[in-house]
Amino acid sequence: MNFSEYFPIWDQLAPGQREALSGSLVSRAVKKGTVLHGGGTDCTGLLLVKSGQLRAFILSKEGREVTLYRLFDRDLCLFSASCMMRSIQFDITITAEKDSELWIIPADVYKRLMEQSAAAANYTNEIMAARFSEVMWLIEQIMWNRMDRRVAAFLLEESAIEGARRLSITHETIANHLGTHREVVTRMLRYLQSEGMVKLSRSTVELLDEKKLTALRDM
Amino acid sequence: MNFSEYFPIWDQLAPGQREALSGSLVSRAVKKGTVLHGGGTDCTGLLLVKSGQLRAFILSKEGREVTLYRLFDRDLCLFSASCMMRSIQFDITITAEKDSELWIIPADVYKRLMEQSAAAANYTNEIMAARFSEVMWLIEQIMWNRMDRRVAAFLLEESAIEGARRLSITHETIANHLGTHREVVTRMLRYLQSEGMVKLSRSTVELLDEKKLTALRDM
Repeated sequence: MNFSEYFPIWDQLAPGQREALSGSLVSRAVKKGTVLHGGGTDCTGLLLVKSGQLRAFILSKEGREVTLYRLFDRDLCLFSASCMMRSIQFDITITAEKDSELWIIPADVYKRLMEQSAAAANYTNEIMAARFSEVMWLIEQIMWNRMDRRVAAFLLEESAIEGARRLSITHETIANHLGTHREVVTRMLRYLQSEGMVKLSRSTVELLDEKKLTALRDM
Repeated sequence: MNFSEYFPIWDQLAPGQREALSGSLVSRAVKKGTVLHGGGTDCTGLLLVKSGQLRAFILSKEGREVTLYRLFDRDLCLFSASCMMRSIQFDITITAEKDSELWIIPADVYKRLMEQSAAAANYTNEIMAARFSEVMWLIEQIMWNRMDRRVAAFLLEESAIEGARRLSITHETIANHLGTHREVVTRMLRYLQSEGMVKLSRSTVELLDEKKLTALRDM
């Protein structure tokens, strides 16, 4: 597949803009676990996911994590190129959650494109608005939702992403997604198990009753 | 003062774009407490603050609140016109925190402007990134910061906005800003009072030791 098929506004760009863009692309294949962006760097470039799965999260001083959003095929990550907009005043970390293939677009090339092309700038606006919406959802979850519902929501989402009811995941990893402590997750999972919604075994969580989990999530 | 002086990219617009914009503006003066946007409406229009102070917050089903950000002179509010971008998938409420004067820009006019003008689209990008940064700061506060530090940070911010050390504010209002319960705020304020940082009296909080409050906030 070509880059043009992954970049929805390709047809709206002028020939010179297309050349500048495709001439600057770096293709990269990364293993699961690779840290793609983070730790004070601000000009990694924009990441366009060809295949695989990335995770964007924030880190506290003490090393606690909370997942902001995931990126899948065709998603474009702006915040790994925060140097291109002076109003982006926060740091996120991005890692590959699965083996992934990406294109990296240099921040300066993309910035120039946005300045020249209203289509590119508006496309970027839509992407930022979509991430903003995910982060607003997260705030609502953190503020108003009890942890048992957040664990239920996470398990259902994870199961949908993996297309599997049996998830290989540790309590520690779930805690890092949700920004809480392992002990809290263990307590919640045991509660869900006692209600017959999941079955726990070593490093796996099996979803037994998705209907009940969904009801809990949407309560 | 003219609208052109409040809209930084005015000089970069074509004459026709300027006409469309100024011809569509609605000027409005609102009293403190007026709800400007919220409750499922999505096309109030963009709000440009001439003078005064607005507050953007989210509401839980149970009526709890948490402040996302404030808007001051020259600030432009995009999310009161969420119909202009399909990726904005969240609802916020906006109220006047002080008597305010505003311009309202119709969403369809602004959307057309963004489609035509890369400058307008990039300006909008910067504004969204600035709000995104404020919301990311909020997530970090909620996730990692203890409530005593959040109360200290809020009092210092409020004191800076008002240019006063003596704040007329109820514990309930502080709780609504921070997304917590009144009782929690009362407990925190009493602790700050016992440490000599503030002095409490009926509906007022006086900052006595800004240095200690700042140290607590930045701890």
